[in-house]
Amino acid sequence: MRLPELRKERYTVRRRNGLAIEMDEQENSTVNSGEKQAAVRIGMLGLGTVGSAVIALLWRNRELIQHRAGCQIEVVRVAVRQLDKERPVILDPRMLTDSAYEVIEDERVDVVVELIGGVEPAYEYVMRAIELGKSVVTANKELLAKRGGEILDAAKEKCVDVYFEASVGGGIPIIMPLKQSLVGNRIKRIVGILNGTTNYILTRMTKDGVDFAAALSEAQMKGFAEADPTDDVDAFDPMYKIAILASIAFGYRIPLDAIYREGIRHIGPADIDYANSLGYVIKLLAIAAEHDGMIELRVHPTLVPKTHPLASVSDNYNAVVIEGDSVGRLMFYGQGAGGAPTASAVVGDIVDAARNIRLKARGRIPCVCRVGVKVKSVDDVVSRFCVRMKVADKPGVLAKIAGVFGAEGVSIASVVQRESDGKSAEIVWITHSTPYRSLREALDGVSSLDVVYSVGKPLWVEAD
Amino acid sequence: MRLPELRKERYTVRRRNGLAIEMDEQENSTVNSGEKQAAVRIGMLGLGTVGSAVIALLWRNRELIQHRAGCQIEVVRVAVRQLDKERPVILDPRMLTDSAYEVIEDERVDVVVELIGGVEPAYEYVMRAIELGKSVVTANKELLAKRGGEILDAAKEKCVDVYFEASVGGGIPIIMPLKQSLVGNRIKRIVGILNGTTNYILTRMTKDGVDFAAALSEAQMKGFAEADPTDDVDAFDPMYKIAILASIAFGYRIPLDAIYREGIRHIGPADIDYANSLGYVIKLLAIAAEHDGMIELRVHPTLVPKTHPLASVSDNYNAVVIEGDSVGRLMFYGQGAGGAPTASAVVGDIVDAARNIRLKARGRIPCVCRVGVKVKSVDDVVSRFCVRMKVADKPGVLAKIAGVFGAEGVSIASVVQRESDGKSAEIVWITHSTPYRSLREALDGVSSLDVVYSVGKPLWVEAD
Repeated sequence: MRLPELRKERYTVRRRNGLAIEMDEQENSTVNSGEKQAAVRIGMLGLGTVGSAVIALLWRNRELIQHRAGCQIEVVRVAVRQLDKERPVILDPRMLTDSAYEVIEDERVDVVVELIGGVEPAYEYVMRAIELGKSVVTANKELLAKRGGEILDAAKEKCVDVYFEASVGGGIPIIMPLKQSLVGNRIKRIVGILNGTTNYILTRMTKDGVDFAAALSEAQMKGFAEADPTDDVDAFDPMYKIAILASIAFGYRIPLDAIYREGIRHIGPADIDYANSLGYVIKLLAIAAEHDGMIELRVHPTLVPKTHPLASVSDNYNAVVIEGDSVGRLMFYGQGAGGAPTASAVVGDIVDAARNIRLKARGRIPCVCRVGVKVKSVDDVVSRFCVRMKVADKPGVLAKIAGVFGAEGVSIASVVQRESDGKSAEIVWITHSTPYRSLREALDGVSSLDVVYSVGKPLWVEAD
Repeated sequence: MRLPELRKERYTVRRRNGLAIEMDEQENSTVNSGEKQAAVRIGMLGLGTVGSAVIALLWRNRELIQHRAGCQIEVVRVAVRQLDKERPVILDPRMLTDSAYEVIEDERVDVVVELIGGVEPAYEYVMRAIELGKSVVTANKELLAKRGGEILDAAKEKCVDVYFEASVGGGIPIIMPLKQSLVGNRIKRIVGILNGTTNYILTRMTKDGVDFAAALSEAQMKGFAEADPTDDVDAFDPMYKIAILASIAFGYRIPLDAIYREGIRHIGPADIDYANSLGYVIKLLAIAAEHDGMIELRVHPTLVPKTHPLASVSDNYNAVVIEGDSVGRLMFYGQGAGGAPTASAVVGDIVDAARNIRLKARGRIPCVCRVGVKVKSVDDVVSRFCVRMKVADKPGVLAKIAGVFGAEGVSIASVVQRESDGKSAEIVWITHSTPYRSLREALDGVSSLDVVYSVGKPLWVEAD
């Protein structure tokens, strides 16, 4: 289908709700159809926080971006759910449509930018764009984690690019460094704080001593957490992200059900306190590692030594530590969410897609993932653990429990007895490295001792 | 000139001096001239620490790299100064030559990797490679900082690529993220710890209380510092690196004489102690910033607040903080030197050059720097400062000195009087933000007071 040529297009960006974008009333230059090669044209799906920030950034830095990209980047059509909603950017109404397919199928559109989120209908839109030979830029981690294989296979067949830097770590460059700068490395381990919401909640719990519920509602009030917070606090979001990073790092499609996932709802002030007094902070870590061809994939609250580079990553910041066999240990740190940081990643991808279009080099870095990844069962994952338990406060109890640990081959690194009311005492154990299975079995044994009143959920402990 | 076809090439990598590379005696596959498209061929200049590590990495991870790159990367010829020197990698003697031009002009060579360092003859070699239409990968910061303009102009004219990720921050991806992922951002500020040697020395002085000379000789013994350490301790090396980063970030060629440079020789244990007690650590920072079209460029020892992300970057690690108008504050951290980390960056560049050759997309991201940068005089740079002085230990001295500061418009944030032997006392001042000129003039005035016995070199103080 052919839309009437827009002779003048107007972007107006207004300052609202503290969104730091310029007031600007200039008009975009007219583009003749004869100058087609001078511009790469964008069709955008979604105009929420990120979409608006992308438009604002492309507009505010348009000369800089054109100079660096070697061509003009022009947004020609945007699909929104509600045409008449008030937004931080005001577009010429002729650019807007409530039909995603009108954008995708617009002949002028070279690159489709998908910013609506969720699996459906985003999947159908992205596949249609690829079918039409258009490159795709997306920030959609759920889509990529769940249907990335099909999407990237289709892209490879059609020789188009699918970019997704914004899907992990917001504005932090991670995907591109992994695919390009670090291409010579066998990646051994990736450890990330990949969810800003839970990091904010854990930071508040740590610094202000509030409980989970209070920290969550504060995060919701500040707009850092959704009304339904399950995607974040139950760790689906960082699970999607580590799946994406692991697939690039290890070169395998990652089935989500192979990832061990544990959220932060069960973390209480007492856990934070104990961790602190033992020299740790609690962080929700996403971990992917490779040993002898077996991949280890897990997302869970973790005791991180205060000396670890990730321990000081606070509030809604994200960070990723990457260990390569040649480069050693790298860390990337920055804002993992929010309109402007995410827009930075989306625009970086748009420009790269534009370069490939201009040079007829689409499909320049195709997906090279294989299927058939071998993922370690969580039972076989070796780690240190921290376990808190309530026990009878009488002689011989410690020895009895230690005996059960020993029988399962779990060796104890340190033990602290913290409070006692004369009848019961609280004991915190930190183990040496042990397979999770052995720990589970030891805890089953410990729980059945009559001197043990309750055993808390074990927490994973990260090495330095 | 045409060299005889090498039917079999043998790379052997041996473990020596703790260099963690594999023992491997396999033979490289024979390449027929008819299969030219399947491989991209590398000619290497220099086979020292980095060159050997590049060969070792390309060999150790050859299958992985070929899978990711979509083509074989093959080193076909290597120029060395001494043909018979013992090296950590052993190559088929027919691959070696003591003539750089034999490598550059070898018809098989698609990419010339320059790892000899220094300006001459590296400049001539690189220009010759470009003239022949070959892409170049280099780790040579001095060459780029001094002659990068001419090299990149020539590359643009010939439409070849010149890659230099390894020239800044060793294995840390910085150049590529700046050119690609962050392309939408107006970069506001770059602050880096870019020299591992001086960071190691300052870390030893801080943690072990040793003086500069002792820390330097320890660094020399450990191989972290050269016998002639001036490039590092007088801050030439980080000056070259910040020039490279600033040129990409701000889009201007950077004349080196516009960069304010101060080394760390004058830093003593007393400076470290005072800094520590005031909540700071001393780091050699390289800073580039832009305000209203004026660029600020400086390299100097700096008091960094202990809460700043750069404060915890210890030993020979490097880190770069980048502030973009959209992405906010990012930090990249990793090993800034050494064979294996630098080889990681070189191989990343080689693969990217190979992708462009394969897709006929050379010159994909050309240099877009302009000339005519406006650099702020150091006198106009606004910062906080720390000044230490020895004064007469009698009433009214503080007020007298504060009066001179006030007359020059320098306002004092804090002052600490530390030791007194009854006759003289030591005072440490930290100022609020002030132009360097005002500070200089105030210190001239203070020095001429009869109650002031000596005034130390002022130290720059970084904000949080």
